[in-house]
Amino acid sequence: MGRTQSLTFSGRLAVVLVSTRNPLNIGAAARAMSNFGFSQLRLVDPYSPAFREAKSAVGASDLLAEAREYPSVAEAVADCAVVIGTTAGRNRQLRHEMVLLPNAVPRIRSEIASGVALLFGSEKRGLSNEDLSHCDWVLQIPTAAKNPSMNLGQAVAVCLYEMARDAKASGKIAARARASSADLNRLTATLLEALENSEYLTTSNTRSEERIRLFVRGLGLSPKDSQTLTGMVRHMLWKMRQSS
Amino acid sequence: MGRTQSLTFSGRLAVVLVSTRNPLNIGAAARAMSNFGFSQLRLVDPYSPAFREAKSAVGASDLLAEAREYPSVAEAVADCAVVIGTTAGRNRQLRHEMVLLPNAVPRIRSEIASGVALLFGSEKRGLSNEDLSHCDWVLQIPTAAKNPSMNLGQAVAVCLYEMARDAKASGKIAARARASSADLNRLTATLLEALENSEYLTTSNTRSEERIRLFVRGLGLSPKDSQTLTGMVRHMLWKMRQSS
Repeated sequence: MGRTQSLTFSGRLAVVLVSTRNPLNIGAAARAMSNFGFSQLRLVDPYSPAFREAKSAVGASDLLAEAREYPSVAEAVADCAVVIGTTAGRNRQLRHEMVLLPNAVPRIRSEIASGVALLFGSEKRGLSNEDLSHCDWVLQIPTAAKNPSMNLGQAVAVCLYEMARDAKASGKIAARARASSADLNRLTATLLEALENSEYLTTSNTRSEERIRLFVRGLGLSPKDSQTLTGMVRHMLWKMRQSS
Repeated sequence: MGRTQSLTFSGRLAVVLVSTRNPLNIGAAARAMSNFGFSQLRLVDPYSPAFREAKSAVGASDLLAEAREYPSVAEAVADCAVVIGTTAGRNRQLRHEMVLLPNAVPRIRSEIASGVALLFGSEKRGLSNEDLSHCDWVLQIPTAAKNPSMNLGQAVAVCLYEMARDAKASGKIAARARASSADLNRLTATLLEALENSEYLTTSNTRSEERIRLFVRGLGLSPKDSQTLTGMVRHMLWKMRQSS
């Protein structure tokens, strides 16, 4: 399931929230980290000292209690070899190399051994140029041009979901099993009888049998569904006969 | 960038929030929809009538103003052929087929032409069994076992990010048209009556209605097949009644 891999990976990734204003957003970021198996939360100069009580951190109060505070980005990322800024939308002019989130993860994985910091800016202004000057490259969440700016807690959730997203899990929808012809013929026969009995079919003839068989086959039933339907129709047939 | 295609895709997908308590979460869901280019928001029985003023809907106030309210899940999804429940975590015991989010999108794309509804349950309890009985399958966000339950706004953001993630990768499995939920509910109601009448079901209760609805949805009927079956069962029902 790639879960082990994801946990190892997540142990080396620090989420760094820079100058966050709303304690609820810190709580929401902590909750998302916990949801996707990340644990290292770092805060640079948060506006409210009350953030550790954030009620939005459902299931993540430990993580929040262990979050570390730093006076500057430089200190927060000191032990990380790779520092990545985040932004939403497409139109920001940056001097940095921009990598779309879906393409960013293989790159982050290849660098994770050295320690990676993922920086999120304040709700109002995002990351400043000074903040970005600590970054090696910028990860961009691809959002709509009409409303590119994301809520901080949602941006953290989306990035961490993508980090934990299992590349191996992709593909292959299992085909669903189909009822055998024998099953379908039993259903056809029962249905045909019930339809004659209920005067849905006025006459019994080869053509109507063919029509019903085609109809039944066209339903694309599973073995179980075919048997269940046969049972249902049999009951109705029994009831119709009993009372006529 | 596949944006045009993504918008076409998104135009056919309705986000349905069921019994949401916190107006901030409705606002957050609206914002995420707007971020990823989705527009159809539907609300089933929201707890607060004040949701349209949610301040968390930055850049999405139009979308929120146009959100439609419904008294029940059945009415909210009546025009959608495919209804998908959502859940986070791995351990929930469900009768439905579960598909992990990364694998869900090709499947949703293949069915998008018939209209797709994506259901999110309330903050506290998620989707109820009654809600789920309207669903064809369940999309599961792969979260950590230690803290599987996601914040609602973040869950919506993660799902819609994944939908918009790779517009180009759209699988083109020729889609067979699917019966609308309204059609399937008609069939369910008729079948339920017939099954009670024939004593296939001995008592009429909520659980049996849910079971039959799930069975009917699981058949994957086309609009025409659904109508034909409804007509057949109606005839049998008429016959049973006539003679009893």
